[in-house]
Amino acid sequence: MADKLPLASDEHVLEPANLRDLNEPLIDHAEGQLFLTQAFNIIVEEVLCKGTDVKQKVCQWKEPEELAELLDLELREGGEGQQKLLQRVRDVAKYSIKTSHPRFFNQQFAGVDYHALAGRFLTETLNTNLFTYEVAPVFVLMEMEVLRGLRQLVGWTEGDGIFCPGGSTSNIYAMNLARYQLFPEVKSQGLYGLPRLAIFSSPESHYSVKKGAALLGIGTDNVIMVKVDDGGRMIPEDLDQKIELSKSQGAVPFLVSCTSGTTVKGAFDPLDRIADVCDKHKLWMHVDAAWGGSVLFSKQHRHLMKGADRANSVAWNPHKMLVAGLQCSALLLKDTTNLLKRCHSANATYLFQQDKFYDVNLDIGDKSVQCSRKVDCLKLWLMWKAVGSSGLAERVDKAFVHVRYLVEQMKKRDGFHLLREPEFVNVCFWFIPPSLRGKEGNADYQDRLAKVAPTIKERMMKQGTMMVGYQPLGNKVNFFRVIVFSPLVSQKDLDFFLNEIERLGDDL
Amino acid sequence: MADKLPLASDEHVLEPANLRDLNEPLIDHAEGQLFLTQAFNIIVEEVLCKGTDVKQKVCQWKEPEELAELLDLELREGGEGQQKLLQRVRDVAKYSIKTSHPRFFNQQFAGVDYHALAGRFLTETLNTNLFTYEVAPVFVLMEMEVLRGLRQLVGWTEGDGIFCPGGSTSNIYAMNLARYQLFPEVKSQGLYGLPRLAIFSSPESHYSVKKGAALLGIGTDNVIMVKVDDGGRMIPEDLDQKIELSKSQGAVPFLVSCTSGTTVKGAFDPLDRIADVCDKHKLWMHVDAAWGGSVLFSKQHRHLMKGADRANSVAWNPHKMLVAGLQCSALLLKDTTNLLKRCHSANATYLFQQDKFYDVNLDIGDKSVQCSRKVDCLKLWLMWKAVGSSGLAERVDKAFVHVRYLVEQMKKRDGFHLLREPEFVNVCFWFIPPSLRGKEGNADYQDRLAKVAPTIKERMMKQGTMMVGYQPLGNKVNFFRVIVFSPLVSQKDLDFFLNEIERLGDDL
Repeated sequence: MADKLPLASDEHVLEPANLRDLNEPLIDHAEGQLFLTQAFNIIVEEVLCKGTDVKQKVCQWKEPEELAELLDLELREGGEGQQKLLQRVRDVAKYSIKTSHPRFFNQQFAGVDYHALAGRFLTETLNTNLFTYEVAPVFVLMEMEVLRGLRQLVGWTEGDGIFCPGGSTSNIYAMNLARYQLFPEVKSQGLYGLPRLAIFSSPESHYSVKKGAALLGIGTDNVIMVKVDDGGRMIPEDLDQKIELSKSQGAVPFLVSCTSGTTVKGAFDPLDRIADVCDKHKLWMHVDAAWGGSVLFSKQHRHLMKGADRANSVAWNPHKMLVAGLQCSALLLKDTTNLLKRCHSANATYLFQQDKFYDVNLDIGDKSVQCSRKVDCLKLWLMWKAVGSSGLAERVDKAFVHVRYLVEQMKKRDGFHLLREPEFVNVCFWFIPPSLRGKEGNADYQDRLAKVAPTIKERMMKQGTMMVGYQPLGNKVNFFRVIVFSPLVSQKDLDFFLNEIERLGDDL
Repeated sequence: MADKLPLASDEHVLEPANLRDLNEPLIDHAEGQLFLTQAFNIIVEEVLCKGTDVKQKVCQWKEPEELAELLDLELREGGEGQQKLLQRVRDVAKYSIKTSHPRFFNQQFAGVDYHALAGRFLTETLNTNLFTYEVAPVFVLMEMEVLRGLRQLVGWTEGDGIFCPGGSTSNIYAMNLARYQLFPEVKSQGLYGLPRLAIFSSPESHYSVKKGAALLGIGTDNVIMVKVDDGGRMIPEDLDQKIELSKSQGAVPFLVSCTSGTTVKGAFDPLDRIADVCDKHKLWMHVDAAWGGSVLFSKQHRHLMKGADRANSVAWNPHKMLVAGLQCSALLLKDTTNLLKRCHSANATYLFQQDKFYDVNLDIGDKSVQCSRKVDCLKLWLMWKAVGSSGLAERVDKAFVHVRYLVEQMKKRDGFHLLREPEFVNVCFWFIPPSLRGKEGNADYQDRLAKVAPTIKERMMKQGTMMVGYQPLGNKVNFFRVIVFSPLVSQKDLDFFLNEIERLGDDL
């Protein structure tokens, strides 16, 4: 018959007397809310006030060993008092990078939007799961509306979509959908017996294309790299040739993953011309617009994505340029045949019961590979409501104006050498210290230049004045990539940026 | 030469005059912080006070059309005033499910912990990305420490791990690691030319095993279902036989995915005996302890996972029983050979530069398939610091005590029929309305019983008094599954639960 409840060995029995009164919940709301309010005040003071103040540091560099000790990370048997915990909140804030600081130029998640942040706090507190209408009525409907709004900007009046935990996941979903559309039997039978599949992308596309190919059992070798032009944009003629070549070698091309806003250069692949090639070969066209998608808000700059409406799928991360906050990534689909659900569904009867009293098409969870899925739409929705499409467009337009200003200023100064005129808001440049100027012909020039950016970076981090990234690319040695889009940035910050690079690098 | 910045067509040119002063950021901090503070107050009032008050409703049911209209979801060109936006915050809270309410028994994300919530607010505000020490110094170290703490509870003094956006992703990563360990060439070459791979799990395991097999190109047909006993636990002897059979059919078994705390019944697979089978056949043993893993905190109940230390990987979601908040899922690994990084890395030079001035082993991002990765460790760390391992153990122990009480009460009442004695904190039962009692022999008994749970569920949702899930399973018609673990629950809520089921169902 039925099992007994598991019995514990004697020495481990927890006597009921050791438990607090069963009628007294383990959480004290008054105490908890007091703590939360005090923590909120610290967060506002440390992260939102000091953390965005140009008179304060962007980062407080500590060596890992020292930092670990300062934070006292160890987890112990007993708990701690409220004051000590509040100090921990303060310490975590103090030693963390201030990504909202106007002088954080390091990556595509700079800045803060207070309406989005309020939406994030509300999301966290409501703590629900975006899989059924039953537990997330507001967010099921809201996600649909936000996806509709984003799709409209792509140029689609209908379609499908889903929020994913990051752009890589969005790109990988697109890959899986493209494969499923061509070979639906893969879902049940796997890739066994199928010919080798091939994906086409550019060497400047995001690394998630390769990670996805590895995860999906397609293999990174089967991601064929299409040549790019000087600006880092995929060359459609080479794409066509590579597809033909791949076919002639027995592979089955099924997906072209192009990019709107490449990670390093911010390049936009020529979507319209790539769409012609995809049409010709009947391939799924995916646009990784994780970074660049937000230009669609701007009347002035949306031409960069001309042809996006001809794609089958678009990945777009409002957590980047729109400052919605991590994580916020939408996969948008032109499909109207419920492909997303057919490809991903497992029809779990404990969650997606068909005899519910409401329309079970609102139980959207089976569209995802995830089960638990965080609500990522509210922050974007509330921010969009707050500033409107026009306000979001203004942010995009202003970022371009800032970049134009920065580029003009660089040209007026001796030490700044652009890789090329930026197409987007990534400005890639070398800083040439005085000692290297005019020495381009020297044998050790490239080696010495390669060491400039890392040294300047180390100095700026240790002094905490600002943050900007650098990297090599192809045959180009380390160069800086400054990302300018935070709505907190002003011209003064751009002037500071240039002066600071000179200050930190002039002696090199 | 270099491209020009893209030119807009004349009618779309945004004159500088239309932009606000470049020296004035687009975000007004004072205004933003005022909004955030007012929103915070609404959140506390609506979600944390009213939302946890048993005199208030768990849900405010609305038909989708009505709700969409009430929320005015449409996204428009222009922005809205602060007061209207605050009303929107209030509305979203009002119509959302109160998952922290003591009478939300629907799923494994009930309850609230204020320290975790403070950690979540801080995480959102710091808005950084867990991929490099450079941008997340505190969280790189903290994640390592939290993973170490969780691994110790599994019984490992060393190993690896990573936080994933949900248990499905953790399970899928384990699958990919197991495959890579056996066939490292899959990463570059894909599955072509390899024999058919086989995964072993039970029909009561989580659906992510099948979703993962589909995503990875292995195919759902190659997830072999091992028989379970009456309690829903995998039968090791059948596992052994199914592995032999699979081999004899030409497949290559590589992974056993067992479960600690199945979704519906809360069953714990016998890990020690499964480990013997995995040892015999040299298979990767993965434990999906997303739900049940938290018993490891309890001296009294950790025996349920005896043998977990013999596994290769364990997935554990502190966002479930520990109430850390969505999303918080850890994949723990016994591996010490950097398998996670070798399997997932793409070595992007723009992010994981090797010439940084600090130890680049701290740049953990390449262990993930994700690029952007949300910080999910802080909420758990702060909560753990607050109540200690002993406080978390108390929550687990108390949940078991509550379940014992609930089961005893059910046995005292006529209408409650347990599927079996619960092994964990899922209590599965049928409510038999008076009209059906003693009618088990009638031809239409099962059909009528199947309709009871959905009808009661509809009534409770429309009245908003509580929430509990139901489902069929195998040949068993719809039964309720009540999940009892929230630290906000008291015996009174359990009495209410039983009374309410009777009140809603006695006339059926």
